[in-house]
Amino acid sequence: MNDVSKMNGNANQPAKAIVLLSGGLDSATLLAIAKEMGFACYALSFNYAQRHSSELKAAEKIAALLGVCEHKIISIDIGNMGGSALTDYSIPVPVAPSEGIPVTYVPARNTVFLSLALGWAEALGASDIFIGVNAVDYSGYPDCRPEYIDAFARMANLATKAGVEGKGFSIRTPLISMSKADIIREGLRLGVDYSQTVSCYAADVDGRACGKCDSCRFRATGFKQAGIADPTVYYSANSV
Amino acid sequence: MNDVSKMNGNANQPAKAIVLLSGGLDSATLLAIAKEMGFACYALSFNYAQRHSSELKAAEKIAALLGVCEHKIISIDIGNMGGSALTDYSIPVPVAPSEGIPVTYVPARNTVFLSLALGWAEALGASDIFIGVNAVDYSGYPDCRPEYIDAFARMANLATKAGVEGKGFSIRTPLISMSKADIIREGLRLGVDYSQTVSCYAADVDGRACGKCDSCRFRATGFKQAGIADPTVYYSANSV
Repeated sequence: MNDVSKMNGNANQPAKAIVLLSGGLDSATLLAIAKEMGFACYALSFNYAQRHSSELKAAEKIAALLGVCEHKIISIDIGNMGGSALTDYSIPVPVAPSEGIPVTYVPARNTVFLSLALGWAEALGASDIFIGVNAVDYSGYPDCRPEYIDAFARMANLATKAGVEGKGFSIRTPLISMSKADIIREGLRLGVDYSQTVSCYAADVDGRACGKCDSCRFRATGFKQAGIADPTVYYSANSV
Repeated sequence: MNDVSKMNGNANQPAKAIVLLSGGLDSATLLAIAKEMGFACYALSFNYAQRHSSELKAAEKIAALLGVCEHKIISIDIGNMGGSALTDYSIPVPVAPSEGIPVTYVPARNTVFLSLALGWAEALGASDIFIGVNAVDYSGYPDCRPEYIDAFARMANLATKAGVEGKGFSIRTPLISMSKADIIREGLRLGVDYSQTVSCYAADVDGRACGKCDSCRFRATGFKQAGIADPTVYYSANSV
């Protein structure tokens, strides 16, 4: 996982990277990977009226445990736009697998997140943005696919002063082709404490999980396939 | 300026469009054009701690005068990221033309704005997003160029449920190749009251202009070249 890009920084300073940190299992692993690659990490989280706002408390814990140069939480209003079970509380979070793109999809979410990360990266002089998208054990969201990431990177390098006049941006997706079990194994190797992460779409205020949503199912299966005890605490007796 | 896309809506309802409305001359004209094309317009403005926040009051007036289905103002934190004279008050707004991309450039601004517009468009079921970028009488910002807009549109159609499963999105830039004088003539034909718009990068709380920044200079020259009396009120005796 080592990478020469850390050499792009000043001789005495590591290169800076923005790491999108939701507080879930994937993004905690992502941050550990970016740190191991030698980047000075700037964690970015979002408060967008998401149903699972205990994620944000988890993001703060993870940022502190793994160590970052700065952790910024940006509040944005996309919650009141509706259109997703994660932000519109009148749409229930499904408890069974669905066909096609599920109702937990938040319109343009990764695009909004990456765009704000791009703005911060440019202001900081960072060339690398890490996002924990995964195209294997995922829910079929269009903005988790490699072709989307490539199109975002191309756009970002046309959009910005640093893209046009400077060294440009890379969108880094080290998890994109890993299974959930592989992600967990890699995170444990790097010392991630998964008991501090929250993945559930319907977590309670203490970060306890429903055990029924897509995200809980992928997570539980990942621990099972990795042969590792699952540290997740569930609030439902009827959990996975 | 009529366009068949208005026919994409339900037989009894016009197609919806998001119109990015800053409160300046260009975006007021943009809204008038979108309305003339027959779209049901949803105006979107941003409070990002910009120096010229009197723009937002102007945006509210313009939205009310021209008539929109809804006007949403989203507050976001990009102001505290620094990197621009428009949001970092320690960097002075330049009063003379500069070489290259100027310090008034805000990192990834149009990308952040278009991404949030994309999210709202998808939630509303709108396929068209209007942005008043201009590649003629402009300040050399990279995110005003046609190649950037094309790359954003391509990314948007890979990013979204509506892009993948539905009819997709168009990013509409009717002003992109118009001179400032042409934009003013078109706006006056459509009844835009330019006395209600604020273009200045350093406007005061009442929306009065400095008369010296890039934006003031392009605006003043536009009125002059169009042979139309400039309704702009300046706070500086030494104005253009």
